[in-house]
Amino acid sequence: MSQAPALQKLLDELERLPGIGSKSAQRIAYWMMNTDSATVLRLAEAITEVKSTVHFCSRCFNYAEDDLCEICQSDRRDEGVICVVAEPRDIAAIERTGAFSGLYHVLGGELAPMEGIGPDELRIADLLRRLASEDVREIILATNPNVEGETTAAYIARLVKPLDITVSRLASGMPVGGELDFVDEVTLSRAIEARREL
Amino acid sequence: MSQAPALQKLLDELERLPGIGSKSAQRIAYWMMNTDSATVLRLAEAITEVKSTVHFCSRCFNYAEDDLCEICQSDRRDEGVICVVAEPRDIAAIERTGAFSGLYHVLGGELAPMEGIGPDELRIADLLRRLASEDVREIILATNPNVEGETTAAYIARLVKPLDITVSRLASGMPVGGELDFVDEVTLSRAIEARREL
Repeated sequence: MSQAPALQKLLDELERLPGIGSKSAQRIAYWMMNTDSATVLRLAEAITEVKSTVHFCSRCFNYAEDDLCEICQSDRRDEGVICVVAEPRDIAAIERTGAFSGLYHVLGGELAPMEGIGPDELRIADLLRRLASEDVREIILATNPNVEGETTAAYIARLVKPLDITVSRLASGMPVGGELDFVDEVTLSRAIEARREL
Repeated sequence: MSQAPALQKLLDELERLPGIGSKSAQRIAYWMMNTDSATVLRLAEAITEVKSTVHFCSRCFNYAEDDLCEICQSDRRDEGVICVVAEPRDIAAIERTGAFSGLYHVLGGELAPMEGIGPDELRIADLLRRLASEDVREIILATNPNVEGETTAAYIARLVKPLDITVSRLASGMPVGGELDFVDEVTLSRAIEARREL
């Protein structure tokens, strides 16, 4: 330990971040040492602010600063369609497409019985309460296209079908710009099954 | 912009870090949202602390919290040998080897006339002052083995030689564990020139 202790502490904390190894932590720490205080301290403040002001939207469980998130507060969204996702970051991904203008519902994970995540660990009861009190025509199950996501979608579909609400699922198929050669078999077989007449 | 503003601000600040693109910034931001406040705020505090307490050692220009850095303060170091490096991070690299027990001198860069970095922009005058006032037998020029580093080493060697102080340079050669096939020609030709009799 021939490092200044405060620098060593910073390195330790940086290494805790996901995807940051000791080399990246060092690179970031030295960048911080060589960069003006104002710029560097803005990051420290942004971290502190996020932890003190951001919590879950009381309606859809997206990240929010007020009681409702920006999407739930907007009057430009179609309140008749709810897109159900596993995590708030999935909302960010869908919003980037600009292809969806309804509301969201964040489950807070996907069913994984082996890891002890059953329906009660997810916000499924909250979803059913919303469907009972809001005027919803359709829910889009946008959980991930893997075992947990499919199981979760199937589970929710079974609960919602009797309520006379359309239940849909994101299409599976070829990634746009992909090549047949590089697509895995499961995806390719889904793309064949779901082929569209031109 | 359907993101909570504080979260968006955090993403913007994270993307400023070296080696962090928008995907990594997102991953880190969501990790921060999902991690307990105490852990996350320790990073914010470490950043603030580093910027307020760490500055340059008045003797060797390593990072330090007191007037002198931990290495200059230690009574276990050989004060007769000074290892000259470009940046404080180079000290960390050499200290990790455990192969050097002398003192350091940080130049704060390497000569790069094309970018306007001449001898006056580096801490070369400070080095000469140390050589005049301290009892130094040898300086090891550990600038990088590239054009700027070699130029800097040659420049300092010319200044120091007349002072009756041994001037040495880190050896160039094959990286240990490397394969002949994968080593670039310049390194390999240096390794041949500097071959040692067994």
